[in-house]
Amino acid sequence: MKTQEIFKNIRIVLCQTSHPGNIGSSARAIKTMGFNKLYLVKPKMFPDAQATSLAASAKDILDNAIVTETLTEALEGCAFAIGLSARKRHISHEIVSSREAGLEAAKIASKQEIALVFGTEISGLTNAELDCCQLLAMIPANLEYSSLNLAAAVQIVCYETRMAITTEELDKGNLPELAHNEALEHFYTHLEETLIQIGFLKPDTPKKTGERLRRIYSRARLEKDEVSLLRGVLSLTQTPRKHNKPK
Amino acid sequence: MKTQEIFKNIRIVLCQTSHPGNIGSSARAIKTMGFNKLYLVKPKMFPDAQATSLAASAKDILDNAIVTETLTEALEGCAFAIGLSARKRHISHEIVSSREAGLEAAKIASKQEIALVFGTEISGLTNAELDCCQLLAMIPANLEYSSLNLAAAVQIVCYETRMAITTEELDKGNLPELAHNEALEHFYTHLEETLIQIGFLKPDTPKKTGERLRRIYSRARLEKDEVSLLRGVLSLTQTPRKHNKPK
Repeated sequence: MKTQEIFKNIRIVLCQTSHPGNIGSSARAIKTMGFNKLYLVKPKMFPDAQATSLAASAKDILDNAIVTETLTEALEGCAFAIGLSARKRHISHEIVSSREAGLEAAKIASKQEIALVFGTEISGLTNAELDCCQLLAMIPANLEYSSLNLAAAVQIVCYETRMAITTEELDKGNLPELAHNEALEHFYTHLEETLIQIGFLKPDTPKKTGERLRRIYSRARLEKDEVSLLRGVLSLTQTPRKHNKPK
Repeated sequence: MKTQEIFKNIRIVLCQTSHPGNIGSSARAIKTMGFNKLYLVKPKMFPDAQATSLAASAKDILDNAIVTETLTEALEGCAFAIGLSARKRHISHEIVSSREAGLEAAKIASKQEIALVFGTEISGLTNAELDCCQLLAMIPANLEYSSLNLAAAVQIVCYETRMAITTEELDKGNLPELAHNEALEHFYTHLEETLIQIGFLKPDTPKKTGERLRRIYSRARLEKDEVSLLRGVLSLTQTPRKHNKPK
């Protein structure tokens, strides 16, 4: 795949951004690093004059930005999502530095579409949003003051990804085809339904255990074929129970 | 030298910044990366409410910022200065990527004070300012739109320097003691005077040739002892001429 194609396989997703100025500054950061796909999940104000002003010559990025209601919609077609996290919250999530994240992003994007996901200015990504990501990235920062401005964080992650795309010898040889986000979501729904049906999860409070299972499969980076395999297992798990019930 | 001492040996110098907001955002960028010395050469507006607002919790960096009239004053005590350049202007200057610049900064700062120097928002560093730097750094960017916001550029250069300080095995073993900026400036003045005296430079238009000579010595990264040596040569160059004149 040509370098230019790798850039096109990478989208930047900003979740619930509060300040439109940060959307504009992020658009500029994205464009200077050679990317052009911006997704906005429930932005507080958009379009907005301040966003346009701070985007400078990256207005086209804003014009072509895709606004969605949920992160899941924004991840449609993606095989991998890397979420930026400022704090170590999810021990069960795999956390890497921004440098490693850039390399990982470049490697997978050389074959499939991926997303770099950023949360709100104050609190970052919600737990539910983090659970849509397969990998968490942290920018190494001053322990006494680690709060980077949103657009600054976008700049660094895009910079590291650009550096990896343009300077690293990406070992793309044995890269498997990862399952798309939709396939994963269908699998998770199928899994939850099955676990409720067999009485492992309670229908009213399936959340916590469900999240832990998601993270296990997130870390596993499921391939397309593996999702089919697992869903086959789920189908067979459900069927006998249906037949058994009447007995 | 302890890691914390290396951070203290690095100052960030912003030259003739137009927008006070960029000074505030840069202060935040500097602090998140663990640095705390900010120098402002002839800022258009400072102090300013917008700077304070955008600095967020990095107000202490602004409070302790040192304002100077010239870049030379801001470089007092520095043994090395790296200037950020967006364009390839000075063929005779050594230009490296932001990654290499971070490594170089970390290496020299493990022994002596250094400066990371940034120009104005629109036109970057002037030629005169570039001539005060021993090395130019460029952030690899989209060729079609390479104009990073000033604070975003500060963020990346500080990030690369932090990464180098904290993760690289700095080979500090054979690092020579570089001459301070003041010693270099005295040497350049001495050189110019001598060249005028011997008739190599014309007193009214010494500029262009003088700049070319500066760049040669910039690239050479003169050590403390070498400056003494060269000034010794200059002194002897002047003296005989004085004695010769009457003949």
